[in-house]
Amino acid sequence: MDSDLSAAKPRRDSAATRGRLLVAATDEFAARGIAGARVDRIASAARANKRLIYDYFTDKDGLFDAVMDAITGQVTDAVPIDATDLPGYSGRLFDYILDHPKVQRLVAWARLEGRHGPTARGKSTQYYRLRLAAIEAAQQDGHITTRLTPAQNLMLIESLSVGWLETTPVFLAASDHDAAEHHHPQPLPGNAGSLNQARAVIIDSVRRLIT
Amino acid sequence: MDSDLSAAKPRRDSAATRGRLLVAATDEFAARGIAGARVDRIASAARANKRLIYDYFTDKDGLFDAVMDAITGQVTDAVPIDATDLPGYSGRLFDYILDHPKVQRLVAWARLEGRHGPTARGKSTQYYRLRLAAIEAAQQDGHITTRLTPAQNLMLIESLSVGWLETTPVFLAASDHDAAEHHHPQPLPGNAGSLNQARAVIIDSVRRLIT
Repeated sequence: MDSDLSAAKPRRDSAATRGRLLVAATDEFAARGIAGARVDRIASAARANKRLIYDYFTDKDGLFDAVMDAITGQVTDAVPIDATDLPGYSGRLFDYILDHPKVQRLVAWARLEGRHGPTARGKSTQYYRLRLAAIEAAQQDGHITTRLTPAQNLMLIESLSVGWLETTPVFLAASDHDAAEHHHPQPLPGNAGSLNQARAVIIDSVRRLIT
Repeated sequence: MDSDLSAAKPRRDSAATRGRLLVAATDEFAARGIAGARVDRIASAARANKRLIYDYFTDKDGLFDAVMDAITGQVTDAVPIDATDLPGYSGRLFDYILDHPKVQRLVAWARLEGRHGPTARGKSTQYYRLRLAAIEAAQQDGHITTRLTPAQNLMLIESLSVGWLETTPVFLAASDHDAAEHHHPQPLPGNAGSLNQARAVIIDSVRRLIT
């Protein structure tokens, strides 16, 4: 019994430490990207020895890949496509992105820094093909227009649901997206109205374009 | 005469060096962002003494601000809004972004790294207000729908014209946007068709939404 426990304990500790490192790395990479992230800061936030990062993840790039492997597919799992109700899907996508700024930022960093590990790449491709297949099936069932290809429909839906975050002048945009509250009272710039009104405009636009 | 020349030459050299530093910094920041950029690499590419970067721009952040001051408004100057033909405007915006990946990347880095100098911020706000005013005037003249506010119309147009670049899985997307060629034969992922077809879908979608 004693020897079993003494063998098991380091393994449990090791999994816990690895988990804390991933949590700390998610925060650090979301805030600063790969080049800006500091391994020292991650180790310190995780209350772990910096050496363990190299033991578990090889290097800073490997740690970033592990973070991306963990979050890739989170959007798709949390907001599964419903091709019979694509306007509703676009609203849920809008909410998810707004409520998960770390996911949005990590994806943007990976894109800019050109870092795409094979696992995240494979998952992302797979989920993309699943979304296309769902749209194609909904077209065959007559739910949405066949004027556009599945990929063109998806491009319009995702551009409208997510793209406004990239094009709104950042210093004019709503500054505080509180995930916990889940209502969006902040005004958008100019006269775009509240985030709830923007959400309604996006949902209505998707309905107009794809049906 | 001689004394005039000897006084003028350093000034001309200084302006030329400052210009070379800005060109090199634009390339370096577009490729690597602020945290990833190296002042040594910029000085070397500009064939300048690194010390001059500190003399002219104070520090790396100041150099980034100078680059952003130079490019902010470039999109707006190159693609002035034509509120009587917003579908055409969206097509030109699509082309510009595709043909100027450095501008697109610099704006994305500034957003992620939260670096917005006062000059770029002021220009960007001013250009945003001009676009809103143009749309409002076109609404009053009956060119476009009054169902949406000017800012909501602008959000839809710019999301559709630019947002697809952010949402298309990067490793599936067309990889080579040759600015010089100005035709876009690369296929988009899935069955989205060529970039020319995507452009046509976006222009048509803007027409459907705003008229």
